Amino acid sequence: MKIKVSEIVDKIDAQVIGDDSVEIEDISPIQHSKEGHITFISNKKYSKYLSTTKASAVIVGIDINVDAIKGKTFLQVKNPYFAFSKVVKLFHPDKLLIEEGIHSTAVIGEKTNLGQDVSLGAHVVIGRECTIGDRTVLMPGVIVGDGAKVGADCKIYSNVSIRENVIIKNRVIIHNGTVIGSDGFGFAFEEGKYYKIPQIGTVVIEDDVEIGANTSIDRAALGQTVIARGTKIDNLIQIAHNCKIGEDCVIASQAGISGSTIVGNRVQIGGQAGFVGHITIGDGAIIAAQSGVTKPINSGQYVYGTPANDYKKAFRIQAALRRLPELIKDVMNIKKRLAKLEKNRGTNV
Amino acid sequence: MKIKVSEIVDKIDAQVIGDDSVEIEDISPIQHSKEGHITFISNKKYSKYLSTTKASAVIVGIDINVDAIKGKTFLQVKNPYFAFSKVVKLFHPDKLLIEEGIHSTAVIGEKTNLGQDVSLGAHVVIGRECTIGDRTVLMPGVIVGDGAKVGADCKIYSNVSIRENVIIKNRVIIHNGTVIGSDGFGFAFEEGKYYKIPQIGTVVIEDDVEIGANTSIDRAALGQTVIARGTKIDNLIQIAHNCKIGEDCVIASQAGISGSTIVGNRVQIGGQAGFVGHITIGDGAIIAAQSGVTKPINSGQYVYGTPANDYKKAFRIQAALRRLPELIKDVMNIKKRLAKLEKNRGTNV
Amino acid sequence: MKIKVSEIVDKIDAQVIGDDSVEIEDISPIQHSKEGHITFISNKKYSKYLSTTKASAVIVGIDINVDAIKGKTFLQVKNPYFAFSKVVKLFHPDKLLIEEGIHSTAVIGEKTNLGQDVSLGAHVVIGRECTIGDRTVLMPGVIVGDGAKVGADCKIYSNVSIRENVIIKNRVIIHNGTVIGSDGFGFAFEEGKYYKIPQIGTVVIEDDVEIGANTSIDRAALGQTVIARGTKIDNLIQIAHNCKIGEDCVIASQAGISGSTIVGNRVQIGGQAGFVGHITIGDGAIIAAQSGVTKPINSGQYVYGTPANDYKKAFRIQAALRRLPELIKDVMNIKKRLAKLEKNRGTNV
Repeated sequence: MKIKVSEIVDKIDAQVIGDDSVEIEDISPIQHSKEGHITFISNKKYSKYLSTTKASAVIVGIDINVDAIKGKTFLQVKNPYFAFSKVVKLFHPDKLLIEEGIHSTAVIGEKTNLGQDVSLGAHVVIGRECTIGDRTVLMPGVIVGDGAKVGADCKIYSNVSIRENVIIKNRVIIHNGTVIGSDGFGFAFEEGKYYKIPQIGTVVIEDDVEIGANTSIDRAALGQTVIARGTKIDNLIQIAHNCKIGEDCVIASQAGISGSTIVGNRVQIGGQAGFVGHITIGDGAIIAAQSGVTKPINSGQYVYGTPANDYKKAFRIQAALRRLPELIKDVMNIKKRLAKLEKNRGTNV
Repeated sequence: MKIKVSEIVDKIDAQVIGDDSVEIEDISPIQHSKEGHITFISNKKYSKYLSTTKASAVIVGIDINVDAIKGKTFLQVKNPYFAFSKVVKLFHPDKLLIEEGIHSTAVIGEKTNLGQDVSLGAHVVIGRECTIGDRTVLMPGVIVGDGAKVGADCKIYSNVSIRENVIIKNRVIIHNGTVIGSDGFGFAFEEGKYYKIPQIGTVVIEDDVEIGANTSIDRAALGQTVIARGTKIDNLIQIAHNCKIGEDCVIASQAGISGSTIVGNRVQIGGQAGFVGHITIGDGAIIAAQSGVTKPINSGQYVYGTPANDYKKAFRIQAALRRLPELIKDVMNIKKRLAKLEKNRGTNV
Repeated sequence: MKIKVSEIVDKIDAQVIGDDSVEIEDISPIQHSKEGHITFISNKKYSKYLSTTKASAVIVGIDINVDAIKGKTFLQVKNPYFAFSKVVKLFHPDKLLIEEGIHSTAVIGEKTNLGQDVSLGAHVVIGRECTIGDRTVLMPGVIVGDGAKVGADCKIYSNVSIRENVIIKNRVIIHNGTVIGSDGFGFAFEEGKYYKIPQIGTVVIEDDVEIGANTSIDRAALGQTVIARGTKIDNLIQIAHNCKIGEDCVIASQAGISGSTIVGNRVQIGGQAGFVGHITIGDGAIIAAQSGVTKPINSGQYVYGTPANDYKKAFRIQAALRRLPELIKDVMNIKKRLAKLEKNRGTNV
C-alpha cells in the first residue's frame, strides 16, 4: 500500500517542507529506513541520522531546522511522537490477533454473559456469573474467575489471570502473564506464627488503562484496589492491596508500591522505584527511577534517591559525595596545620 | 447474614465497650464503613477515622482510648489484626473458587494419584507419576510436571507452573503465574562461551507456606532449594537455586536472593532487597527494603542500605550525608581562615 | 548405574589423585554426598567440606592441594564447574519432560508448519502461519502467536507466551511464564492524556540463548528487539522495546534495561541493576548488582552504584562514607580550635 505525503499530512496537521507528492510505502526507524519509507525523530539524540537516513520523508518537531537537508520531505509537527503514532496506524491498522469468535476449546461458566462480537481464544476459561463486554478479545489461555466483569473493547493477552470478582472497565489492555486480583500480602503475627488475613476485597481497573506483562495487582483485603482512568503500567510491576493509583499516571517497569498507598493523578514513576505502604503521593509528582519513597510526597514534587528526597537537594548531595574522599584528605591536612599553629602559639605565648 | 457483636466477641476474646447486642451485617475498611458494619484499626495512622467512621462496631487494640467516642461499640483485643482475620471469616467463609471435581478438559498423566476430593479446573495438566493430596485444588491452567508431589489442602491458583519432581507439602497456597522449580541460573564459562550446568535438583515447599503471584523459585543444581514451614513469600520474588529459606520468614515483593544463600528462621526481608549468593542470614534478622546484602548477617541484626550495614550506623551515615554539602562549604571556609592565620604567623615570627 | 572414575576421567580430561577404579553411582553437593557419590568444588568457600565429605570422589581445581586428604579420589581439572556439568550429564542424561509427539488437545493454526519430531504438550496453542523447527518441544500451555517462528532443538517451558511474528532461532531455552514480544511501553502525551504508540516491530532471539522464568522481553515499536547468540538471561528481567543485547552476555535476575539501550558482547549485568534508555554499554563491561546506569559505559569498564560510577571510585566513595559521621565531628572540633586561635591572634596583635 502506498500513501502520498499529502494524505499523511491531512491526518497529522503537519507543515510540509519539500515535495508532498512523494509516495510512502512503510514506516521504519531512522537508522534503518529505506527509500519510500517515512520515519520520525522525537528524541534529539537521533538528529544525527537526519542527513544520512534513506527515508524519503521524516516527521520532525517544529524546533528542528532542516533547511540544509535536501532531497527529503519533512513534516513538521508540534508533537512528533504523537504524529508518529497516527502514521503507524495508517500503514499497520490494528487487527485481531486470533480468529474471530469463540474457540471450541474455550470453557465458559454458568450464568456468564458474553457481549456482541466477543472473541475467545483457544483454552480460555471464564468462570460463573461473569460479564464480558462487546468486542472484547480474550486471547488463548486467559483465565477469568467467577463473578469478574470485563468491559467493552478490551484486549486481554494470553496467559493473563483475572481473579474472581475483579472489575475491568472499557478499552483496557492487559499484556501476557499479568495477574489481576491475587491475594494481598497480609498476615497477622500471633504467638510466633503468621496467620493469613483473608483478602475479600477486589480490584477495579478503570477505562483506558494499559498494563504490561507479568505484572501483579493485588486485590484489597477489604474494599478495592483501584487503577484509575488512563493510567499506563509497565511490565513486572507490583501494586499491593488497597492501593489507589490516580488517573493518567505512568509507572515504569519493576516499580513496586506497597499496600494502601494512594498515588495522585498524572504521577510519573521511574523504573525499579519502591514505595512504603500507607502514604500519599500528590498529583503530578515525579519519582525518579530506583528511588525509595518512605514519606508522603507533595503535589508536583520531583524526588530522587533512597530515601527519596527533593531532586535538587538529592543531586547536590550526590555531587558533594563525589568530593568526599578528597574532603577527608583535606580535613586530615587541616588538622596537621592546625596542630602546628596551636603548638607555635604555645611557644609564642 | 447478621451476627450480634456478642457472638463475634466469643470468637476473638475481646472486651466490649458499648452495646454488645448490636447486629452486624458485614466488615469493611474504616474509611468506607456503613451502619451495620464492623471495622478495625491495627495501624495507628487510621485512628483519625475512629470518630467519623459510620461503622457500628470497631475492633481496636487495648492501648486505644475510646472513652470519648459515643454511639459505637468497641471490641478491645490484644492483636486487632489477628482478631480482624477471624471476623472476616465469619462473614466471608472460605469457598471453592472453581466447580468441585475434575473438569473434563483436565489432562492427567499415567500413574498419577489423586487424593480424595481433589478439584482440578479446566485445562489443568498433570504429568506422569505425580501425587495430588486430599482436598487440594488446582485452578484452571495449572501445569504440574512429571513426578511432582503436591500435598493435602493446597490451593494452587491459575497459570502456576510446577516443574518435574518438585515437592509441595500441605496447606500450601501458590498464587497465579508463579513458577516453582525452574532451572537455576548456572553456566560454566569455557573458552569464551557459557555452557549450561544441568539443574537436576528440585524444590521442596514445606507446610503452610504461601507464595505470591509471578514469583520464581529455582530448582537446585544438585540437591534441594527449600522453603521451610510457615514462610510467606510475596509477588515477583526471585529465589535462586540451592537457597534454603527458614521457617516463618516474611519476604516482601520484588526481593531477590541469589544462589546457595541460607536464610534462618523468622527473618523479615523488605521489598526490593537483594542478596548475593553463598551467604548466611541469621535467625530473626531484619533486612530493610531496597537493601543490598553483600555479607553474612548475624542473628537478630537489623540492616539497611547498599551495601547493607547495621541499621543504626546506616542511619547515622544517612543523616550525616544530608549535611555533606554544608560540610564542604565549611571546610573551604576553614582552609581560607587557616591560610590567613598561617600567613599572619609568618609575619609575626 | 555405576560408572568407574577412570571412565569419568576420559570425559573431562582430569588428572587423578587416588584410586581411579572406584565405582560412582551418583553426583551430589559436597555437604550432602554419600559413599559412592562424586562431588565437586568450584567456589573456595566450600573447601572446608573437603575433609569431611562422604563422597568417594571429588572434582577439584588444579590449585587445590589435596595431598593431606586420604581415602578419597580427586579429579583435578582446570575448570571444575565445566567438568561438573559434563559429569552431571553422565548420570542424568537429558530427557524429554513430556510425552513425545503432538498432544490431542494442542491447537495448531492454519498454514503452520511443524518440523520433524516436534513435541507439543497438552493445551499448547500455535497461531496461523507459524514455523516450529525440528525436535523443538513446546510444553503444556505454551502459546505462540500468528506468524511466529521457533527454530530447531528449542525447549519452551509451560505457560510461556510468544507473541505474533516473534523470531526464535535454534537451541533456545525459555523457562516458564516468560513473555516474548509483549508491546513496548510507548505513549505519546498530548493534551493531558497518553496515547498508545502501536508496537509493530518484533523480537529476535538468536541461537543458544537461554531465558529464565517470568521474564518479559518487549517487541520493538518499529524494527527489532534483539537478544544475540549465546546470551543468558535470568528470571524476572525486563528488556524493553528496541534494546539490542550482544552475544554471550549474562544478565542476573530482576535487572531491567530501558528502551533502545544497546548492550555490547560479553557484558555481565548483576541482579536488580537498572539502565536508562538510549545508551550504549561497551563490550565486556561489568555492571555490579543494584547499580543504576544513567550514562554510556565504555568497553571493559566495571561500574557500581547509583548512579553507576567507575568501580574503584565508587568503592573509594563508599569507604569514605563510612567515615563521614566522624568527619563531621572533626570539622566541628576544628572550627572551635580555629576560632580560638583567631581570637588569640586578635589579642596578640
